[in-house]
Amino acid sequence: MIITVTPNPALDLTYHVDAFEAGASLRVDTARVRAGGKGVNVARVARQAGERSIAIAAVGGPTGREFADELKTSGLDHVLVPASGATRRSVAVVDAASGETTIMNERGAPVTADDRAALASAVRASLPGARCLVVSGSLPPGMPTAFCAELVREAHDAGIPVVVDAVEDALVEAARAGADVVKPNRAELRATTGLADPIAGARVLLKHGARLALVSLGAEGMLAVTRDAALHARMPQPLDGNPTGAGDAAVAAVAVSIVTGDDDLRSRLVRATAWSASAVLRPVAGELADNFRDLEHNVGVMDA
Amino acid sequence: MIITVTPNPALDLTYHVDAFEAGASLRVDTARVRAGGKGVNVARVARQAGERSIAIAAVGGPTGREFADELKTSGLDHVLVPASGATRRSVAVVDAASGETTIMNERGAPVTADDRAALASAVRASLPGARCLVVSGSLPPGMPTAFCAELVREAHDAGIPVVVDAVEDALVEAARAGADVVKPNRAELRATTGLADPIAGARVLLKHGARLALVSLGAEGMLAVTRDAALHARMPQPLDGNPTGAGDAAVAAVAVSIVTGDDDLRSRLVRATAWSASAVLRPVAGELADNFRDLEHNVGVMDA
Repeated sequence: MIITVTPNPALDLTYHVDAFEAGASLRVDTARVRAGGKGVNVARVARQAGERSIAIAAVGGPTGREFADELKTSGLDHVLVPASGATRRSVAVVDAASGETTIMNERGAPVTADDRAALASAVRASLPGARCLVVSGSLPPGMPTAFCAELVREAHDAGIPVVVDAVEDALVEAARAGADVVKPNRAELRATTGLADPIAGARVLLKHGARLALVSLGAEGMLAVTRDAALHARMPQPLDGNPTGAGDAAVAAVAVSIVTGDDDLRSRLVRATAWSASAVLRPVAGELADNFRDLEHNVGVMDA
Repeated sequence: MIITVTPNPALDLTYHVDAFEAGASLRVDTARVRAGGKGVNVARVARQAGERSIAIAAVGGPTGREFADELKTSGLDHVLVPASGATRRSVAVVDAASGETTIMNERGAPVTADDRAALASAVRASLPGARCLVVSGSLPPGMPTAFCAELVREAHDAGIPVVVDAVEDALVEAARAGADVVKPNRAELRATTGLADPIAGARVLLKHGARLALVSLGAEGMLAVTRDAALHARMPQPLDGNPTGAGDAAVAAVAVSIVTGDDDLRSRLVRATAWSASAVLRPVAGELADNFRDLEHNVGVMDA
């Protein structure tokens, strides 16, 4: 079983328009409303791949109620704890003409010390029975950057490996706490380490204490870097589609590899690359295209 | 007392951004959330001007609960009846750099015959004690275009004058039912009558049975056309700001003129023009700038 934690969940509203234009007033169909946030997406993908997953988040206000309603409807197992602030929104406008997506991502309400303690406590209570913990996404205002690292230590105390998708101080501290996998993309890794070369950046995180750094490179594929090896995988050609959620699919792939006992670096990287590409083919984050396992056969791997 | 009916209410979300760009992913502050829709805006403005007003609407779903919460917080008197579908959203992004506002206006959930009957019944129950009924804004999917006309007849049976801000068939039918005031803007009037000349278009509505047509012309001011007269009013110079809600302020002005017994055409037009200009100075719809009464002295009126 995979436990995912989403420190800064969002109620995702998505609009599909024929031709988006700044300054225009557009009549649109009702927004598709979804419980979102990276950890929730990871849990959805893991479930689609046949692994039991539980999404944990703290939600509040009317948007939190909508978040909970959508999770219930979707059938994804979840543990929601009450937050003192209202759950933030994320509004995405997908433009059919340009293929571009415009996103307004709310920062979120500040969390209190009680909010933080309640979320950590829910994670702690869920650890017995878990085979992997995933901590994924931004931190809300007021959440100490040490939060991810604390969860890494909690899970390790219970003998459970941890995958962390975070940035900057939160990512560095998680690496220092010995996160089993860290998953920044190239821009996040650069923002975190100051290094433009993703392999050099990955090695900084390994030096801090992370065991494996998966670095997503967008259309150029993905890197897997450990203390002993660096591999680069990519699809034969980039896939057109919606890149939102591609990184979450990679995180889900590595979490599934962990719970199924597949610790071969090449195999983990192939799966992460294929699932990530498969997610691009889907219009929304948190889903894989049906051919996600077939795509694994198309991934090319070379030494990086 | 002014009763306003909003057939297609919306939960308005507004984001303020520094530099909006299609295709960008922006971190934004939490949306300002407001119970919206033209009739609600009219009621807010009338109240700000010192007239008691009651906003009537049908709302449903989680967005309907947020709508109700915001109305309660705002202190505006209201009667909300349950709707079978969820209340639609409207998302506005105000760009500080360009001054432009980009709006995604959801069409709304289809209404049922029961929804329509419940809303009409709430209006009927509120008529005793009212001095003016305002029916304002778009109709939701499934609402017959005869709805506005029916309310005109109901109010007239109770001896209460009616102001209608609607478009196309709904506006024509309301005029045929003898609406006391119709308030399209220039584009709406053209879409309704097929005539580019707003005075000619206004006369079509009068011929159908409307008593007064107020036609807002944006920065060029406003027309008031009756069977006997046509006046054109404007501010000495156009005001910079947010035009959303300017038409609602004009509707509120004429409704206030009706309940205060001011039936002078010029005076009504001056008030509508000044309040409309005043609304442009406010960042959100449903509000007047504090100097709204002073602005009445600046309005120039000529024969049209």
